[in-house]
Amino acid sequence: MSEKKSFHMSPEEFRKYGRAVVDWIADYYENIESFPVLSRAEPGQLRASLPSQPPVHGEAFEAILKDVNTLILPGITHWQSPNFFAFFPANASCPAILGELLSAGLGVQGMLWATSPACTELETHVLDWMADMIGLPGKFKSDSAGGGVIQDSASGAALCALLAARERATGYESNRVGCTGRLVVYTSSQTHSSVEKGVKVAGFGSDNLRVIEVDEKFALRPDVLASQIRKDRDAGLIPCFVCATVGTTSSNAIDPVAEIGRLCKQEGLWLHVDAAMSGTAAICPEYRHIHEGLEFADSYCFNPHKWMFTNFDCDCFFVADRAALIKTLSILPEYLKNKATESGAVIDYRDWHIPLGRRFRSLKLWFVIRHYGVEGLRRHVRQHVELAQNFVKWVQADERFELAAPAPLNLVCFRHKAGDAFNQKLVEKLNQSGKLYLTHTLLKNQYIIRFCIAQTYTEERHVREAWRQIQETADALEKS
Amino acid sequence: MSEKKSFHMSPEEFRKYGRAVVDWIADYYENIESFPVLSRAEPGQLRASLPSQPPVHGEAFEAILKDVNTLILPGITHWQSPNFFAFFPANASCPAILGELLSAGLGVQGMLWATSPACTELETHVLDWMADMIGLPGKFKSDSAGGGVIQDSASGAALCALLAARERATGYESNRVGCTGRLVVYTSSQTHSSVEKGVKVAGFGSDNLRVIEVDEKFALRPDVLASQIRKDRDAGLIPCFVCATVGTTSSNAIDPVAEIGRLCKQEGLWLHVDAAMSGTAAICPEYRHIHEGLEFADSYCFNPHKWMFTNFDCDCFFVADRAALIKTLSILPEYLKNKATESGAVIDYRDWHIPLGRRFRSLKLWFVIRHYGVEGLRRHVRQHVELAQNFVKWVQADERFELAAPAPLNLVCFRHKAGDAFNQKLVEKLNQSGKLYLTHTLLKNQYIIRFCIAQTYTEERHVREAWRQIQETADALEKS
Repeated sequence: MSEKKSFHMSPEEFRKYGRAVVDWIADYYENIESFPVLSRAEPGQLRASLPSQPPVHGEAFEAILKDVNTLILPGITHWQSPNFFAFFPANASCPAILGELLSAGLGVQGMLWATSPACTELETHVLDWMADMIGLPGKFKSDSAGGGVIQDSASGAALCALLAARERATGYESNRVGCTGRLVVYTSSQTHSSVEKGVKVAGFGSDNLRVIEVDEKFALRPDVLASQIRKDRDAGLIPCFVCATVGTTSSNAIDPVAEIGRLCKQEGLWLHVDAAMSGTAAICPEYRHIHEGLEFADSYCFNPHKWMFTNFDCDCFFVADRAALIKTLSILPEYLKNKATESGAVIDYRDWHIPLGRRFRSLKLWFVIRHYGVEGLRRHVRQHVELAQNFVKWVQADERFELAAPAPLNLVCFRHKAGDAFNQKLVEKLNQSGKLYLTHTLLKNQYIIRFCIAQTYTEERHVREAWRQIQETADALEKS
Repeated sequence: MSEKKSFHMSPEEFRKYGRAVVDWIADYYENIESFPVLSRAEPGQLRASLPSQPPVHGEAFEAILKDVNTLILPGITHWQSPNFFAFFPANASCPAILGELLSAGLGVQGMLWATSPACTELETHVLDWMADMIGLPGKFKSDSAGGGVIQDSASGAALCALLAARERATGYESNRVGCTGRLVVYTSSQTHSSVEKGVKVAGFGSDNLRVIEVDEKFALRPDVLASQIRKDRDAGLIPCFVCATVGTTSSNAIDPVAEIGRLCKQEGLWLHVDAAMSGTAAICPEYRHIHEGLEFADSYCFNPHKWMFTNFDCDCFFVADRAALIKTLSILPEYLKNKATESGAVIDYRDWHIPLGRRFRSLKLWFVIRHYGVEGLRRHVRQHVELAQNFVKWVQADERFELAAPAPLNLVCFRHKAGDAFNQKLVEKLNQSGKLYLTHTLLKNQYIIRFCIAQTYTEERHVREAWRQIQETADALEKS
């Protein structure tokens, strides 16, 4: 059989083409500022350039790589450009890319400890490191009753937290009998949409989602939360779950976690804290105060794939009571049974999230932490915050503009005083220029420009130039 | 600011270390047969070798790579070894690894069409290719009312199918009011555990999961399904969802999809078809019959990350009515609004699955299809089936052994006639030898050995040697 032609790439070919892709990526980063940040592709443009049928016979790797340049690249919005100030970032770095490459090369599937012990143990170990690095309470570490796991995203983390809370609130009956329609979930009006999605997915029903109002800084109001919980109890409902946010997506607002947490403790509610982007800041002692109150939390997540130079996907999810999570998500068919699992001495991460299979994602996180060291990570986070705070001053110094929210860290929300239509046009023009990419939100029903500084390679010159572009484009629009 | 020390890896360093990792992987594949397939690491072994605290200062990349060799490698179970016959595989290939590398390098996040048009359009295009390659009905293609999307796993696909079915069955009310506890889900006793997990997650309640018995070939019995549906209707419940499997995990049984499908159509139930491993076989016209009856299906999935040489994670999920899926999972906060979305001319894949963020996973699938071509893929799939059918003959020719189930494709279930304890010991000894890795299941309450031939580099010599090991180990055990 082996004499039949194999179409596999040989190790020698892999060395050759692997180098070609590595060089392609290095070239890409050297030239990345030359591309329009937001892709200018038209809907359907890429599809129109691709053959309608797959190739019958294999093609040369050179031909594929050529198409990456000519067909794919124009359809890329450059998330890794230092001029990317949109959304929350998904910042990558060279060590993370190499960790992802190694993970792809090893190709292990870590659903069970036994299916690659290193995949499980490195993850547990690095998440314990992370817990210390960002100052989480000891209960979230694996030597206590809790522990950490890598999820695909903060959406996945929120869903798992909702499910464990649902089970706990029903005496571990909701998996069996379904959701009662009487469990209530609390967020603020600024909470990420993934929690609403999770409420729907997990069968709570969005009618049972209470959107609590926020204060003038866009932070959840614990007094309103407390009175809503009372109202729901009086109506015979079962308050179950609160999501507090450390750094909301719209404006980077920081909910009063300690106050909310004391209330949750008193009322027996599951407190999940979503620090998807801002959690990274707590690596620096001077920003660690954002994690005040976490001693009251049942679960917590932040995304190294947002602001810690680790390629998407890498959400670090911590629970204080891992037994609650595992009991909620555990499945053990015969074909997965093995001695290590039965010994009870190991973690099987398949019971910590929705999917069964899992990639070796801790490799890239380990590479990032070891390459930068804690001090190196702090250095870059501090630079981003410093750049954002400079940007705040520039906005304040230009009387045509105003800040729209406090900027505690690296996200600046601002607007031109000329109103929504003007700001909308301003964002469009800037994004069309290709020189930078930023996005908007609504705050107090006004169209607000968001400017987030967290891309790996963003330096002072990029922020200065962005502000110059914003001012000049505003000038031109004012005159038109 | 830029004069401050940056800890980022420079493009030149990335070229150097990128080559080192590429060479590491090439070396790994050249030597992979020298490692014990199942890791011999003890619980806690890796963790004991790692420092309890993360490094304060960054380390040299050489030091990290050295630790990969000395610390990580002993904790690897070698999924990419040609002697891996366990579970279902997660088979990778060089073009897929390079696609994953390129995706990591580009670092785009494709939640919206606008956040990288190429990420969305390549995915739609390649999934349309795949639909044709495996002979799916036209309704699953993007030019109809349906379409395909890449999910993390068949678990994710099953959950999304369950959710869309739940919404459809309740007139799109379950997202709002929660799950009623009256919707009923049907699987067979051989259905993958992910459906049971999905039933719990989505709030159906496992009390509302009916596990339908199977025939002597381990395929779901449509007559039993029909009578159970009647019983449930008579009890005032709402039959909602059926999962049929093309190639069950335990024994590769193929449910009678057409017969089940006609019943679902008649009864108004959502039919999901899980072909996670075996769907790939349909690339070959001679095996396409496994997809008979898909014209009745509402959703379908198969995993190129199992048997189509595409690195985990890559599950292709197709729906006949994309509007039902999108309506179920759609969320649109202000900060994600954009002109392309509003135009209605584009797909925003964030509404097609649980997470918001998404990697550029179609790149690796595109690389695989273009590198191998359809004929190249067929060649390797045919070889695996041929090797498995040879193995069947060897089992049948040794009177000590017997087949435990039909082997329609590339999974052989067999046992030594000496009973469960003997077979269990046989599997343990074989796995301890390090020369191969295989796993077990239960069929008709008997301990059965599974032998799955689907690893990228498995050739006839590996299968011959595995059978020799099995026979010799059985000899030794018989004598002991």
